[in-house]
Amino acid sequence: MKDEDDLDELIEMQGRMCIALDLLESCKPFASMIPEVRTNLVYAKESARGPHDVLAIDGRITVVNGMPHAAGNPKFGASSHMARLLLELRKRDPSIRAGINFANTPSLVVWMNDYCRTRGWIFSVIDRGGEPEEIKDAEGASIPWKAGEAIRAAGDRVPNLFYETGAVGKEPVTVLVSRDPISVVREMIALTLAYQKKQT
Amino acid sequence: MKDEDDLDELIEMQGRMCIALDLLESCKPFASMIPEVRTNLVYAKESARGPHDVLAIDGRITVVNGMPHAAGNPKFGASSHMARLLLELRKRDPSIRAGINFANTPSLVVWMNDYCRTRGWIFSVIDRGGEPEEIKDAEGASIPWKAGEAIRAAGDRVPNLFYETGAVGKEPVTVLVSRDPISVVREMIALTLAYQKKQT
Amino acid sequence: MKDEDDLDELIEMQGRMCIALDLLESCKPFASMIPEVRTNLVYAKESARGPHDVLAIDGRITVVNGMPHAAGNPKFGASSHMARLLLELRKRDPSIRAGINFANTPSLVVWMNDYCRTRGWIFSVIDRGGEPEEIKDAEGASIPWKAGEAIRAAGDRVPNLFYETGAVGKEPVTVLVSRDPISVVREMIALTLAYQKKQT
Amino acid sequence: MKDEDDLDELIEMQGRMCIALDLLESCKPFASMIPEVRTNLVYAKESARGPHDVLAIDGRITVVNGMPHAAGNPKFGASSHMARLLLELRKRDPSIRAGINFANTPSLVVWMNDYCRTRGWIFSVIDRGGEPEEIKDAEGASIPWKAGEAIRAAGDRVPNLFYETGAVGKEPVTVLVSRDPISVVREMIALTLAYQKKQT
Repeated sequence: MKDEDDLDELIEMQGRMCIALDLLESCKPFASMIPEVRTNLVYAKESARGPHDVLAIDGRITVVNGMPHAAGNPKFGASSHMARLLLELRKRDPSIRAGINFANTPSLVVWMNDYCRTRGWIFSVIDRGGEPEEIKDAEGASIPWKAGEAIRAAGDRVPNLFYETGAVGKEPVTVLVSRDPISVVREMIALTLAYQKKQT
Repeated sequence: MKDEDDLDELIEMQGRMCIALDLLESCKPFASMIPEVRTNLVYAKESARGPHDVLAIDGRITVVNGMPHAAGNPKFGASSHMARLLLELRKRDPSIRAGINFANTPSLVVWMNDYCRTRGWIFSVIDRGGEPEEIKDAEGASIPWKAGEAIRAAGDRVPNLFYETGAVGKEPVTVLVSRDPISVVREMIALTLAYQKKQT
Repeated sequence: MKDEDDLDELIEMQGRMCIALDLLESCKPFASMIPEVRTNLVYAKESARGPHDVLAIDGRITVVNGMPHAAGNPKFGASSHMARLLLELRKRDPSIRAGINFANTPSLVVWMNDYCRTRGWIFSVIDRGGEPEEIKDAEGASIPWKAGEAIRAAGDRVPNLFYETGAVGKEPVTVLVSRDPISVVREMIALTLAYQKKQT
Repeated sequence: MKDEDDLDELIEMQGRMCIALDLLESCKPFASMIPEVRTNLVYAKESARGPHDVLAIDGRITVVNGMPHAAGNPKFGASSHMARLLLELRKRDPSIRAGINFANTPSLVVWMNDYCRTRGWIFSVIDRGGEPEEIKDAEGASIPWKAGEAIRAAGDRVPNLFYETGAVGKEPVTVLVSRDPISVVREMIALTLAYQKKQT
């Protein structure tokens, strides 16, 4: 049985994830932002060391009946890639505890550049053209390099929002990070609505 | 948008419900305690006035693949009967904020009597034979009477555990209440395991 | 591995259940016809002998987000009570292969009486006041008696629609039977819409 | 309302999809074959002209609790990419009515080459290095080209199994096609078990 301090942290984490997920699942416009690899929403414990300390959506968030839909429940260890990316970013800024990934297109990138400027957000890019050859093929080896690039290109800071340029065999995605999943989802929804308004 | 005090209470409530539900859905033996009307798990806000202030499982908890399974997510207003019963009990003891219902059989009643004595729990009964005629037929009117009976028969205290004798057209159920859904589910699982051990 | 004749029957049965369930889950008004014990939809193999030969909804059909919602998938053996009731009725008329149960109220009974007359349907009642004492307490023993009563009261025929009067501890329900689940659900939806139209 | 011929085809299609999906969801080893973009299982009507005539899994098949798990129900129009790829292949061989996509790795490709030879299957490859520039950027334009390549490289026949070499921003996947989803899933499971046996 967990001791009571741990339990308090778990209660707060599960509570914030549930509320964030409810908000996201109710936002129909977000369905069109979900990438082919599907979205995950991740949330690290204060003292997280590995993906098993990161709460994530089991089965990811997909689209059912035209709405964003979590395939399973929030579960520790349910994300590998997004969880490890978050853990790497936290080495630079531990106040960042949550993140989400979403689709990337050239026109979205142009628009996000402006959006970030207006809001005073830091926007960054991971140029996978610069990825060392020995990293590309090793499973998982690219994650520390990617986090490092996003931080370096932002001027040694963890950016609010960053994207990758495409690599062979890899769908490029955008990532938004913040202090907890409710903030992440509120910001994600605001961005989605602003982008779709501009589209019409 | 909720103000931040409200949000803190919602986070804690959703967090406790998620953790409680995970525990319950992992307890296969509980499947055999689910009544025909299905189980609900309810959790009232500190200041709850009506069922819309009570978090409950949308669609109730049923049995899928032999395991307890929440049909939908926790949602305010998702229970009527169990929510109103809890609200009535809280008029006598507001520290009671959560409850669960489960199946009732004559042999379980006998066993629970002993179980409660061993644990120092208060056990009570609602004898529906004493229910006034004018209440039986009015939708919902029997709930204050039932809560009153459970309290009265326990010596003017809210019991930990109580059951009803059957009425025409109504499946009798047992109800366990406690301060929050994690306590309720821990106690429910302990009771289930103790009862099933005795059965074999 | 099943032989191919069996496979053909399974394909047809699963196909008819899926289509029937889609229709039912899309019918919001049916949510208010779901009884406390929840609805099941059952479909017997041509040669069914026991509940394991009857396809039914695992976890039953409940209400989530205000809509009828199957808690699990169709599965052989997922119903006990409704499956055995159907099997008993089939001893008198094997062309009946599917059934559904739904809520019962005094005003619905009066209305169904007229509805059946208009449509040339056979309507019947199981008067549980006449149930022998030795049957009431034996788990499952009441099912052959109930089927027999529904048939007897309909003039030695399997009725299209029948209901029970309440017994102590048992919620009274109504049952509609037909040749397959698509017919059952089409008739169930037509009845629901006609009844709710009359209500307003 | 559909006429009865249509209904018969729908019943058979839904029935075959349900049975195929049950088999796939029960095959834990398949979880490791699900690509980042998730798996879809598609099934075209005899007379299919567009994706709305193709039954597919709404929300795709993901991994929940370590098992393959359909996020939503089978639904016409629920797939775009896989549905259109199947429709293109059917122009050459209309007996092919179903398909599935799964993960691709260099070692799997080598192994599948042998596996196909042993079984007398036709194996093919889409070399995206040869994809015309004007096609790469136009949304959806690459699908007829891809189907054409898979057929051409197989000697003007629809192959049983084919894969793509990676393109920038695109995860390479393998595709298995057959006459209906039960065949597809039986062959998919046999391939999965054979490959995993060889791995150990």
